[in-house]
Amino acid sequence: MFEIKAKDNMGRVGVLKTKHGEVKTPALMPVIHPRKQTIDVGKYGADIVITNAYLIYKDENLKQKAIDEGLHKLINFDGPIMTDSGSFQLSVYGDVEITNKEVIEFQELIKTDIGTSLDIPTAPFVDREKAEEDLKITLERAKEAVDYKKEQNMGMLLNSVVQGSTFLDLRRECAKELSKLDADLYPIGAVVPLMESYHYKDLVDVVMNSMGELPDNTARHLMGAGHPMIFALCVAMGCDLFDSAAYILYAEDDRLLSTRGTFKLENLQEMPCSCEVCSKYTPDDLRAMPKEKRRDLIAQHNLHVSFAELRLIKQAIYEGSLMELVEERCRSHPALLEAVRQLGNYSKDLEKYDPRSKKSAFFYTGPESLCRSEVLRHMQKLREMPKKSNLVILPPSRKPYSKFTSGKLGEFYVQGQESEIDLNDTDFMVLDVPFGLIPLEIDEVYPLSQNDAPRIRDVDAIEFLEDFINEFSEYYEQVLIHSRVVNNLELESYGEYSQSDEIKYTKDDIKKVKAIADYQFGIGAGEALFTGKINIEKSKKTGKIRHIYDGKALIVNMRASDSYLILSKEGARRLHGKMPYPQNRVVVNKDSEPFALDGKSVFCKFVVECDENIRAKDEVLIVNEEDKLLAYGKALLGACEIEQFNTGQAIKTRKGMKK
Amino acid sequence: MFEIKAKDNMGRVGVLKTKHGEVKTPALMPVIHPRKQTIDVGKYGADIVITNAYLIYKDENLKQKAIDEGLHKLINFDGPIMTDSGSFQLSVYGDVEITNKEVIEFQELIKTDIGTSLDIPTAPFVDREKAEEDLKITLERAKEAVDYKKEQNMGMLLNSVVQGSTFLDLRRECAKELSKLDADLYPIGAVVPLMESYHYKDLVDVVMNSMGELPDNTARHLMGAGHPMIFALCVAMGCDLFDSAAYILYAEDDRLLSTRGTFKLENLQEMPCSCEVCSKYTPDDLRAMPKEKRRDLIAQHNLHVSFAELRLIKQAIYEGSLMELVEERCRSHPALLEAVRQLGNYSKDLEKYDPRSKKSAFFYTGPESLCRSEVLRHMQKLREMPKKSNLVILPPSRKPYSKFTSGKLGEFYVQGQESEIDLNDTDFMVLDVPFGLIPLEIDEVYPLSQNDAPRIRDVDAIEFLEDFINEFSEYYEQVLIHSRVVNNLELESYGEYSQSDEIKYTKDDIKKVKAIADYQFGIGAGEALFTGKINIEKSKKTGKIRHIYDGKALIVNMRASDSYLILSKEGARRLHGKMPYPQNRVVVNKDSEPFALDGKSVFCKFVVECDENIRAKDEVLIVNEEDKLLAYGKALLGACEIEQFNTGQAIKTRKGMKK
Repeated sequence: MFEIKAKDNMGRVGVLKTKHGEVKTPALMPVIHPRKQTIDVGKYGADIVITNAYLIYKDENLKQKAIDEGLHKLINFDGPIMTDSGSFQLSVYGDVEITNKEVIEFQELIKTDIGTSLDIPTAPFVDREKAEEDLKITLERAKEAVDYKKEQNMGMLLNSVVQGSTFLDLRRECAKELSKLDADLYPIGAVVPLMESYHYKDLVDVVMNSMGELPDNTARHLMGAGHPMIFALCVAMGCDLFDSAAYILYAEDDRLLSTRGTFKLENLQEMPCSCEVCSKYTPDDLRAMPKEKRRDLIAQHNLHVSFAELRLIKQAIYEGSLMELVEERCRSHPALLEAVRQLGNYSKDLEKYDPRSKKSAFFYTGPESLCRSEVLRHMQKLREMPKKSNLVILPPSRKPYSKFTSGKLGEFYVQGQESEIDLNDTDFMVLDVPFGLIPLEIDEVYPLSQNDAPRIRDVDAIEFLEDFINEFSEYYEQVLIHSRVVNNLELESYGEYSQSDEIKYTKDDIKKVKAIADYQFGIGAGEALFTGKINIEKSKKTGKIRHIYDGKALIVNMRASDSYLILSKEGARRLHGKMPYPQNRVVVNKDSEPFALDGKSVFCKFVVECDENIRAKDEVLIVNEEDKLLAYGKALLGACEIEQFNTGQAIKTRKGMKK
Repeated sequence: MFEIKAKDNMGRVGVLKTKHGEVKTPALMPVIHPRKQTIDVGKYGADIVITNAYLIYKDENLKQKAIDEGLHKLINFDGPIMTDSGSFQLSVYGDVEITNKEVIEFQELIKTDIGTSLDIPTAPFVDREKAEEDLKITLERAKEAVDYKKEQNMGMLLNSVVQGSTFLDLRRECAKELSKLDADLYPIGAVVPLMESYHYKDLVDVVMNSMGELPDNTARHLMGAGHPMIFALCVAMGCDLFDSAAYILYAEDDRLLSTRGTFKLENLQEMPCSCEVCSKYTPDDLRAMPKEKRRDLIAQHNLHVSFAELRLIKQAIYEGSLMELVEERCRSHPALLEAVRQLGNYSKDLEKYDPRSKKSAFFYTGPESLCRSEVLRHMQKLREMPKKSNLVILPPSRKPYSKFTSGKLGEFYVQGQESEIDLNDTDFMVLDVPFGLIPLEIDEVYPLSQNDAPRIRDVDAIEFLEDFINEFSEYYEQVLIHSRVVNNLELESYGEYSQSDEIKYTKDDIKKVKAIADYQFGIGAGEALFTGKINIEKSKKTGKIRHIYDGKALIVNMRASDSYLILSKEGARRLHGKMPYPQNRVVVNKDSEPFALDGKSVFCKFVVECDENIRAKDEVLIVNEEDKLLAYGKALLGACEIEQFNTGQAIKTRKGMKK
C-alpha cells in the first residue's frame, strides 16, 4: 500500500496506493467542500483530495447523491479521496449526530478511498485527566472501526488518528496502541491549534513522539497542516500527507500563502512569487477585482506555492539536501527557528532513518547544523575508532584535507608532558566545522569532505571545536595542536613543542583503505578485507583509489563520489568470514534463499532480521538464518524500515554467491 | 533622474528616469544580444535591458542599421536601454578596435539611454601595481567621457564604472574620484569573477567600500550580477541595478536559476518553483524536448524567478523586512552566509541609511541578526542615556514587558557591595535577545517590543546578553540581577539580595514619556517637552498612551504602532526652544522659507544642512539658516541622502508655523 522511493532524514518520497490510483508523497490534499467546488484543484497539482463524510451525511441531498452515484461523482474528482469523519465538528460543537460505526459504514458505502473513525480531537494544553479520558474513547473507537472494517470486509483504507493532546507520553502510548491494530494509515490529529498559535516547538515534540511509535510502512498524515511554511520541517519529521482548506480560506480573506509566511493583500505592493497569478497581476489589479474573481486567483496562487514547495521538498529528498531546506525555511519566523532547534534534540531518531551517503554536499547554515544526523553519526563512529598513543590536530586546508597535507606541518603546541613522538603511533586529524575532528585517512568519505561552512565562525561552532579537543585529548597520551588552531581558538596554557620540525604526515594507502573499511563496516573490517598481497589501483585522471586487489583478485571498488567501499564477491566473503553476526547482515527467510543466491533483489517481506546499524545506502551482506552468505548488495532503507515493511525492495542485490 | 520611494538598510525602492521612460528599481536588465533576441524579455517583467554597443559597432550591418534606425529598433525594445562599451571584450581579448571617445560618440549616435565609457575591468586579486595602472586609465577615460559628453551636449546618461580590483582603498579612491565628476550613474565593475568563484565575502568588501564613497542620489549598478541567489544581499548593500545574460546562458546549458542556487536539469526529478513552466512541465518533459524549445522554456523560468525575487525584495523594503530576507537567502550556500557575516562588520554604514521605524517586526534568524542596524543603534542610544545609581535586571516576560511587569518581582542577586536600595534612584531593564537591555520606560518603542527571537538560544546570543550585563554593570553603583537571569545564564559569584521583597517596579507615565522623548529626540528632550500641567490621555480600548497635553494644549501624540512621539505645533516649539542646534533640525534655504512656513513639504534641493543623526521616519524640525522654526514634519530620507539629493522630497511637513 505504501512504498518508499527516496529518503533523507525521516523525510521520504513515497507512493501510496489506493483504489483510485497512486499518489506520490509528500502530498497535499486540498479540502473540498462537498457543496461547492470553486477551484479545480487537480489542475494545480492535487493528486488526492480530502472531504468531510459527516457533512455529506448530514445533508439529505448530498447523502442521497453520494450513496447513489458515489463520492467521486459528488465532488467531481476522479483520483483518490480521503474522508474525515466529523471529529472536527465534534471538537467544535461538542457533539455529532452519528456514531463511530455509522460513519465507518457510510464512508464505505459512498466509496471513499480512505475513511476515518470518529476519534476525539483533544486540544493542546488541556488537563491531563481530560486528555486521558478522550484518549480512551479514541482508542476504543479506533479498535471498533478496525474490527468493523474486517468484519464487513470493507474495501476502503482506514485512518486511525493519534491523539493525546500535548502530553508526550500519551501521544507515544496512543501511537503504540494504534500501531498494534490493523489500520492502514495513522494520521496525527489535533495539531492545528499548535500551528495557529505558533507553538511549533510543541508541534515538533508532538510529532516526533508520535512518529517514534508509529509504523514506518505507511503514509503519515499531519491533519490540518496546510501552510507551505511548515511543509519542509514536517516532512523531515516523517510526515507524508498534508491537508488543508488554507488555500481557499486564506483566499476568502485576501491572504496569500508563501513559504515565508502569509501576506495580506492590503499590505502588498508587489506580488511575492513567480506563479502565473503573481506574474500576470499586480496587487492593485487584484484589489480592483470583484471579490469572487480575486478569491479564485488568490486560491490559485495558494495552490501554486503549496505544490511548488512540495515539489522542491521532493527534489531536496532526492538530492539529500532536505535539512538545508528545512534550516532555510525556518528563518521565516523565530518560532520556526526554535522548532528546528528543538528538532536537534531528536537527532538520534532522525539518524536511524538518514541515508549514509547523499548526492549533495552538507551545507552548514548555522548552529542548528551542528545537531544534524551526519554530525552525530560521525562523532559516534569517531569515538568507537581504535586510537593510537598520540594525536596531532591540524588546521583545515582545502578539501580533501589529506590531498593538501604534506611535508613539514609547521609549529605545534603540546598538551601535557612533552616527550618524543612516535609518528607511527600517532593519529593525524584535521579540526574543522561541522565535523570536529576528521582523521586524515578517512577524510574523503562522505560527508567529511563533501561539506562547506562559512569561515567566519559563530560561537556555537567555536565551542563545538573546543569540546572536540577537550574530549579527544582525554583519549591520547600526548596531543600536539597546530599553532594556527591554538591561535584561532585562543586556546590557553599549552607549551610550544620543541621538535615540531619532525612532525610530518606520511600518506599510506593501505592504512587509509583499512581505516575507511573500519569506519564504514565497523572495527576490524580493514584487517578482514585487506590481507594478502594488497594492490591498489588508482584513477589515472584524478589520482583517487579505484580498485583494491589481493594479487589479481578484486576485493573492493572505491566509489569516486563518496569514497565508500563497494564489495566484490571476494570482499563480501572476507567481510562475512571475519565480522561477527549480525554486523552488516540482512537475514532472509528460507523461501527467498535461492533468489538471493541468484542475485535477485531482496524484498522487505522476506527479511527475518537485520543489523540495527544498517542505514539506507549501506553495503550489506545477505545471509540465511544460519548466517550462510547468499549475496551482497546495497540497502535501500534503514534497518528499522526493512524490518517493518512488507512491500517493496529492501536490498538492491549486487551479486548472488551462486554466480 | 533618480528618486527613492522606500528604504530599508541601504536597500531602496527607487525610480530611475530615462528618455525612454521610468524604471522602478531594484531592476534586472537582461542582456540582449544585438544579433539574436530569442526571448521577448519585456513579457517576463523587464522594464530596461542592456546590450553591447561595441558588438554593434564592430558589425557593419548592425552598425549601419543602428545608426539609421536607432538602437531601440535594432533590438526591438521600446523601453530604456543601457549599453556597455566593449570593456568586457577588452578584459577578455586585451584589446578593442575602438577608442573611449569613439565609443561614447557611437552610443550617443545610436540613441542609447545610458552609455558607458571604456573603462579597464581589473580582475580580482591582481598585483597592486597592475590595479593602480588600470585605475589610472579608468579614471582618465571616465573624465574624458564626462567632458566629451558635456562638450557635445549629449542627451544620453553616462556610466562611470568603479574599478580597483580587490584593493579596498583603490575601490574607495576610485569611487571618490568618480563622484567628483558629473557622471550620471556609477556602476561597480569587475565583480563577476568574485561571484563565479563564490568569493562573496570579498564581494561584500568591494561593494561596501565602493558604496561608501559613491553618491546616494543615483542608481548603483552591480555589473554582471544576474543570479537571483545574491539579489537580496546586494540590494541591502545599496545596489539598484543588475544585469546579466545568465537567464539565457544558463538555459543554453540546461541550468535553472533559483534563489537557492542553480539546478542542473539532468539532476532534477521535480520542477523547483511555482512559475508557469515549472507548473506545466516535468523535468522529463523538458529533457525530451528539442534543444531550442527547452532552452526557451528554461530561459522563461530563469526570468520568472529573477523578476519574482526582485518583486519580493521590493515588498521586503516596503515592509522593512529586507534583512530577514537577506539572512534567509544566505542559507543557500555557506559562502553567502559568510558574506552576510562579513556585512555585519559594516553595520555602522548600514545604520546611517536605515529607517528608524518599520512596518514589520524584527525577526531574529541567527547570530547574524545581532549585527543588524537596529541592535547597533539601540546599544549606542542606551549608552548615551542618563543613568541612575542602581540597575535592576529582569528576565523577559511577554511583550511589551512593562505591561506584564508589576508587583513583587521575585528573588535577586546583587553584584558588588550590598546596600539599601533607593527605588527612585533605580533603572529597571529587561534582559532579552536581540536588544540586550531594554529600559522598561521605553520598551514599547520600535523595535524594542516589535521583535521576536527563538527561546532556545544560540551561544552568540547568550554571550551577547552576558556582555551587556558586564558592560552596564560598570555604569552603576549597585546591580540587582533577577534569579532567573542568573540561573539561565549560569552567572557566577553574586550574593543573594536579602531585601528582595521590596524590589517593585512602579509605573510612572510621566517618567515613561520623558524617557521616550530622550530616546527619540536626544537627552533633555523629555524635560523640554513635558513641563507644565502634564495630562496624559490613553486609548480606552488598548490602554496605550495616545495624547499628551500641558493643560489643554496638545504637546505630542504617541503613535500606537511604534510608540514614537509625533510633535504638535506646541511640541515642536518646545523642542526647538530647548534642544541645541543642530539637533533634530533640517535647515532650508531662504527661498523655500515661505513654503515651509505654509506647511508645504521640503524638497532635498532646498536643504542647506541637517542634523547628521536624522534617519528616515524621524520627526524633525524645519528651520531657516538663523535657526528660526518654520515647520515640523517627518523625514523621508536619512541625513546623508537629504544632503546629497537634488530631486525628490526630503521631509513630509506636518505643519508650517504660520498656520
